[in-house]
Amino acid sequence: MLITLKPIGIIYTPFKTKSGMPIQASGALGIKGHIVLNEEFLPGLADLDGFSHIILIYYFHKSMGYELLTKPFLDNTPRGVFATRAPKRPNPIGFSVVRNIKIEKNIIYIENVDILDETPLLDIKPYIPGFDIHKTEKNGWLENKTDDLNNIKSDGRFK
Amino acid sequence: MLITLKPIGIIYTPFKTKSGMPIQASGALGIKGHIVLNEEFLPGLADLDGFSHIILIYYFHKSMGYELLTKPFLDNTPRGVFATRAPKRPNPIGFSVVRNIKIEKNIIYIENVDILDETPLLDIKPYIPGFDIHKTEKNGWLENKTDDLNNIKSDGRFK
Repeated sequence: MLITLKPIGIIYTPFKTKSGMPIQASGALGIKGHIVLNEEFLPGLADLDGFSHIILIYYFHKSMGYELLTKPFLDNTPRGVFATRAPKRPNPIGFSVVRNIKIEKNIIYIENVDILDETPLLDIKPYIPGFDIHKTEKNGWLENKTDDLNNIKSDGRFK
Repeated sequence: MLITLKPIGIIYTPFKTKSGMPIQASGALGIKGHIVLNEEFLPGLADLDGFSHIILIYYFHKSMGYELLTKPFLDNTPRGVFATRAPKRPNPIGFSVVRNIKIEKNIIYIENVDILDETPLLDIKPYIPGFDIHKTEKNGWLENKTDDLNNIKSDGRFK
């Protein structure tokens, strides 16, 4: 079974190359970018301005091939690729939550961007706390490694 | 530009049809399912057992076509499709966070499943609070609507 997708737009960011990029949106606080949505999809943006955070699903267009064991940014031990967010994956699909600053026609201005410039966008979904916030018990090899990236944990709501 | 993807496995759940399905994983508490990963990807599962929650990215294989304005389950007003989680989207890609119960070889037992039976799986990523929990200020048309998801089931409108 083959699944064929077509980008709905392009994500523009300050990151022209992979080196120097933040690891995740939470490490990209304040970094600005914008999405140019293909005009044919413009009506689909209705109501999106009501959400302060949006989920972007995109294609890692610079990732060639994949390794099933990979050394992630935050660790020096090879890990199973599905236990990491590394871009070289069997299906190179990326997922980031960014701040939705402003929408003007088919341009969406975003912030907290950890995405490479000119990345093909596949989907936009609203980030919904009631669906998307989960209380974890185990955080695997990342336990205690994301504290400096996470300034929300400190409000204690998930203790 | 066309992007071609190949499923990495199949998600099995109790939901043979769309009507009666929970709307999101948060309304699917306790519902069990399992993933059969293609054996070639088995090494990629290393370390995943350390995470209590995982992100599944999958293909809405029963969604034919899309509408840019759509009435979501929790509302009777048509909304822009990108401001909803409706399955009929320009790229029918689904996203759910489920509980990772147990991994045996290439079988992943999951819980809190809001996914249709035999759904093609595209990617697995670890759910990481430091990356994935965001404090929103605005929740759009969903404000105050997600409190009682446990009692709301799909009415089959996306058949």
